[in-house]
Amino acid sequence: MTEEALVVFTPSGRRGRFPIGTSVLQAARVLGVDIDSVCGGRGLCGRCQVVLSEGEFAKHGVESRACNLSAPGEVEQAWAHDHGPLLEGRRLSCSTEVLGDVVIDVPPDSQVHRQIVRKRAEVRDIELDPSVRLHYVEVQQPDMHVPSSDLRRLKDALDFDWRLTGLQADIRVVQELQGALRKGDWKVTVAVVGGEQIIAVWPGLREKTYGMAVDVGSTTIAAHLCDLQTGEVLASSGKMNPQIRYGEDLMSRVSYVMMKPGGEQEMTRAVRNALNHLARELAEEGGIEVNEIVEAMFVGNPIMHHLLFGISPVELGGAPFALATDESVRGLWATEIELEIHPNARIYALPCIAGHVGADTAGAILSETPYLTDAMTLIVDIGTNAEIVLGNRDRLLAASSPTGPAFEGAQISCGQRAAPGAIERVRIDRETLEPRFKVIGCELWSDMPGFDEATASTGITGICGSGIIEVMAEMYLAGIIDQDGVIDGVLAARSDRVVANGRTFAYTLLAGEARTLSITQNDVRAIQLAKAALYAGVRLLMDKLGTDQVDRISLAGAFGSHIDVKYAMVLGLIPDCALDQVASVGNSAGTGARIALLNRSRRDEIEEVVRRVDKIETAVEASFQQYFVDAMAIPNKRDRFPNLRTVVDLPEPKAKDPATAGGRSRRGRRDRRPGEDART
Amino acid sequence: MTEEALVVFTPSGRRGRFPIGTSVLQAARVLGVDIDSVCGGRGLCGRCQVVLSEGEFAKHGVESRACNLSAPGEVEQAWAHDHGPLLEGRRLSCSTEVLGDVVIDVPPDSQVHRQIVRKRAEVRDIELDPSVRLHYVEVQQPDMHVPSSDLRRLKDALDFDWRLTGLQADIRVVQELQGALRKGDWKVTVAVVGGEQIIAVWPGLREKTYGMAVDVGSTTIAAHLCDLQTGEVLASSGKMNPQIRYGEDLMSRVSYVMMKPGGEQEMTRAVRNALNHLARELAEEGGIEVNEIVEAMFVGNPIMHHLLFGISPVELGGAPFALATDESVRGLWATEIELEIHPNARIYALPCIAGHVGADTAGAILSETPYLTDAMTLIVDIGTNAEIVLGNRDRLLAASSPTGPAFEGAQISCGQRAAPGAIERVRIDRETLEPRFKVIGCELWSDMPGFDEATASTGITGICGSGIIEVMAEMYLAGIIDQDGVIDGVLAARSDRVVANGRTFAYTLLAGEARTLSITQNDVRAIQLAKAALYAGVRLLMDKLGTDQVDRISLAGAFGSHIDVKYAMVLGLIPDCALDQVASVGNSAGTGARIALLNRSRRDEIEEVVRRVDKIETAVEASFQQYFVDAMAIPNKRDRFPNLRTVVDLPEPKAKDPATAGGRSRRGRRDRRPGEDART
Repeated sequence: MTEEALVVFTPSGRRGRFPIGTSVLQAARVLGVDIDSVCGGRGLCGRCQVVLSEGEFAKHGVESRACNLSAPGEVEQAWAHDHGPLLEGRRLSCSTEVLGDVVIDVPPDSQVHRQIVRKRAEVRDIELDPSVRLHYVEVQQPDMHVPSSDLRRLKDALDFDWRLTGLQADIRVVQELQGALRKGDWKVTVAVVGGEQIIAVWPGLREKTYGMAVDVGSTTIAAHLCDLQTGEVLASSGKMNPQIRYGEDLMSRVSYVMMKPGGEQEMTRAVRNALNHLARELAEEGGIEVNEIVEAMFVGNPIMHHLLFGISPVELGGAPFALATDESVRGLWATEIELEIHPNARIYALPCIAGHVGADTAGAILSETPYLTDAMTLIVDIGTNAEIVLGNRDRLLAASSPTGPAFEGAQISCGQRAAPGAIERVRIDRETLEPRFKVIGCELWSDMPGFDEATASTGITGICGSGIIEVMAEMYLAGIIDQDGVIDGVLAARSDRVVANGRTFAYTLLAGEARTLSITQNDVRAIQLAKAALYAGVRLLMDKLGTDQVDRISLAGAFGSHIDVKYAMVLGLIPDCALDQVASVGNSAGTGARIALLNRSRRDEIEEVVRRVDKIETAVEASFQQYFVDAMAIPNKRDRFPNLRTVVDLPEPKAKDPATAGGRSRRGRRDRRPGEDART
Repeated sequence: MTEEALVVFTPSGRRGRFPIGTSVLQAARVLGVDIDSVCGGRGLCGRCQVVLSEGEFAKHGVESRACNLSAPGEVEQAWAHDHGPLLEGRRLSCSTEVLGDVVIDVPPDSQVHRQIVRKRAEVRDIELDPSVRLHYVEVQQPDMHVPSSDLRRLKDALDFDWRLTGLQADIRVVQELQGALRKGDWKVTVAVVGGEQIIAVWPGLREKTYGMAVDVGSTTIAAHLCDLQTGEVLASSGKMNPQIRYGEDLMSRVSYVMMKPGGEQEMTRAVRNALNHLARELAEEGGIEVNEIVEAMFVGNPIMHHLLFGISPVELGGAPFALATDESVRGLWATEIELEIHPNARIYALPCIAGHVGADTAGAILSETPYLTDAMTLIVDIGTNAEIVLGNRDRLLAASSPTGPAFEGAQISCGQRAAPGAIERVRIDRETLEPRFKVIGCELWSDMPGFDEATASTGITGICGSGIIEVMAEMYLAGIIDQDGVIDGVLAARSDRVVANGRTFAYTLLAGEARTLSITQNDVRAIQLAKAALYAGVRLLMDKLGTDQVDRISLAGAFGSHIDVKYAMVLGLIPDCALDQVASVGNSAGTGARIALLNRSRRDEIEEVVRRVDKIETAVEASFQQYFVDAMAIPNKRDRFPNLRTVVDLPEPKAKDPATAGGRSRRGRRDRRPGEDART
């Protein structure tokens, strides 16, 4: 009877009895324990390292029955010679034999399906499960006695060593195959995508492949370069979308296409060129060759998505806003979109959801996973349109609201893009109505010593989106504007910050020598319109879902990541929610792209989720208009914001004569201060 | 209870009872009767015509219970208005309702799976089952109340009308989709390949698609343009392979690649350019647009195959002659090989079998179907190499023999390619040894009145392959050469046709004023070497299969289609076989390509057959050498050719002194005439 030993693997807990002399890697394979390997157990790649956690291993030359694992042999010595010594206690599992009962730990970096921990506690970690895997094989040389093609013998080796059967190979792989086999002396590494398709062959052992996750935004293209074996982000880069020269916002780009025949090809070329630049930058920063990138995963809004893939965006520019496709792109050749990475690399894109709700929103959903929770979750990504997703595991709704560009600083008299010199934080003294503020690029508040010197180089040039939110919310909290957004001219008597501006008033935020920055009545109106559109969209979805309450809010995108969620709620951009359940989640679209890049089953998951999202077109919903009117009030005409009131002292809404409610008809009541209840 | 009627379809015999008022097409669908339709029963395409064979149909306006089918209505009248009246007794099954018991015949041209009858009785007819099918659909317009993409609505329509589910669509289709839908007012025709993949969308109704079947030969590229709906060949064209400028034969082209870096790309470009010319020619001849060609099926020898697909042929130029791939090419984008047909057309190629046995041989196997018969079948395609396939339903072997270019007229003193002026038929009088012959381009024999005038324009320029076979066989039958191929100098005394030529003799075929054409001893040797190589290959395969007998021989290729099989057998190119079982089958490789183009299941069939073909490399077979030596004799040293002897009076082989057997050592026995047995 063969002598056997018990082998237990941690952390999986899997165990089994194996004949003395079995390699640890073999035992792991039999038990289905997740240990990585590229070289197939030849002691070349060093990926299969394990730690002996109970038992001890023989010293070289003094092997004894008391030991549990064989001594480091020639293979491990050769590996250490090339790569430096193994960490203390580590062994190559392929070259280590079981001699007695043993407990073996598989460290996270030796697992294929390792976890990539995300910073935010409330979101799911990324489990690595790359679509592209590397397999090293030694291929039989051709033999006239058994005529067989190079591809056939390669497949035989992949079948024998890796149990990969029924693989397909592109003609492009076949074109490279002869050279790779002969250059590598019949030893090659093969990249297999999805366990089905050979997409690349390299001579010799190759241990790394890389992928790109890209969010093609209207303004910025953001990309990450990831190591597909570790999930690590090697480089990140952002680039202005060069389509901006055809129009700042989406609609002006669509107009360009409508006006100019061939305009879409021009814009398609522009974005593809930018992507090629970006890929080269990422490769350089990551210290790799650009043709080592074998996969790219894209997200983007519908218009960016369509232009990237050479589809006219014209239909998205007007009702009925029909997408050409709402399917994901799966495994397109990179050359098909002229992307100069590995010529046989594969392109993926998450699916667009509706005419105004794109693959970027699909990415945000994948990152925030509302479909996995009972909590009623709201995801809001604010740009020129706000994409809104609401729901939980039972049902998800998605819509887009036309917020316009006010949040981005456009339409605001002193508004500007977020850039050094822009005011981003504002506080207003409730008594004196004096403001203090912070500008981008300086850590000091404006009333702190040294502020003038610190901002001398940039100057104070305007106010960006987050600053606008804060100054308006503070104006409301200080009573400068009332619930209806009217600047109270009576205060001009109390503070010279409030000044007449034609037939309305303005609040002077900065009265400098170089520049005066004021918030005018028109500025307030512009923000009211924008936030009302956003809130009305949210309210519409809440209505559709029959809920009065959201449990969790994710503010996505550049805007969402800079605003103070409390002020956003004071102003009524978002509905009431426990403040600790509101998070700025950054570029969740890009995160979603990265998740889909690193985990192939997530691709299926998000496709399935997107298919069952209910798409709501706000333009055809009768109730949207009423919600919009209600949402013009600060924070909102109907909702009381109980959670917000626990942390902020909100002015009580005034009782009003319904006949005079609404914007311009309120001049007659400017003698009342905000916060005063008319009924008192 | 609904009233029902019995509907019987011929020729299928399928029958069922249907409610009165059911359309004939609906009834056929339910019963699985094969009736074609592109428009999906809308009365637009006219493909679903049937003939009422028992019962009668109502006259317009005088419908009565006694009638079995409804009267021709508006739909049929509209169709007749556009297309001309239906043939007598024909109806559009989609627009004809069952009123009573009826027998309905589906004529062949209304069947999808119709038979295309081939000229040769012994081969299987082609059953039409095209990979690409057309489907007309009317797509829902976009509706903001139910947001959905164009592609989704197209797929819904295909699902609803045609029960096509789970279809995939190329990004290239998506790029065209918006335009096609809107241009066609939401009515489009879709081309679906393999029931799985949408490859093209056209506005409105489209009833035709086309395919190309191409045999890429070293010398000639031959192509057919086929109607994929009827199987009809609309145009055929041949073109010199422009690679000829890099070398006449395959090996010189491989040498070119070896000598000149980038030479393979040059040759790849050359053949692809030629294919584009050919496609345009075919389209013009067929009266269609070149981008209506949506499929192309290729065959070719391994080197042509590799060059076409951009794979280096260098490995095929020397031992061990390893193919890069022995798989078929399936559904490659035409653009991938720069073929300018429909940009989204699909490219297929039959699999290569071994280093010297290509996709052309796979085509020949598919055309001749030895794998379907018990008869021991030999397929021989003679070129610079002879491809040989032997076997039956139990087992198939394939090999290649290095015949060299002698059969093509090279290495023969007066040899030339088959062209006007070349001698192609020869008879030699057994007594006088006087020859008579025919030349290409003239129907008269040389001893007939008017011959000189008829050939005056071309002259008599040389002798082509079939002529060489005949003259040598006739020389043997007339006793001018003996079994060992030696020209008998003794005959010079009897006929001035036999003349001394250095240390050997020659036979003067033509002693004209302009030109003398002679068959020299060297010419005979060259043909002996070529035919010995071929025969040795066949014998080797017979040996491997353990058979002494072949039941059926197919001579494929240009050479095979011109030679007289009797003379080929007399000379011992091919083994003994009943002469009525030997057929010149023409370009069976090209026929195979056409079969695979027109019938998708034949593609699977030939792949499966090729996988189980045993590949024999003659170079490593020890017995090949012996077979070769034996086969130098005419017809062969070992085999007695019993079938041949029933129709031809073969000279009896001489008993010889084994020590002096072989080429040059036979001068001492030139005093014996061939046909004389030395023992007598």
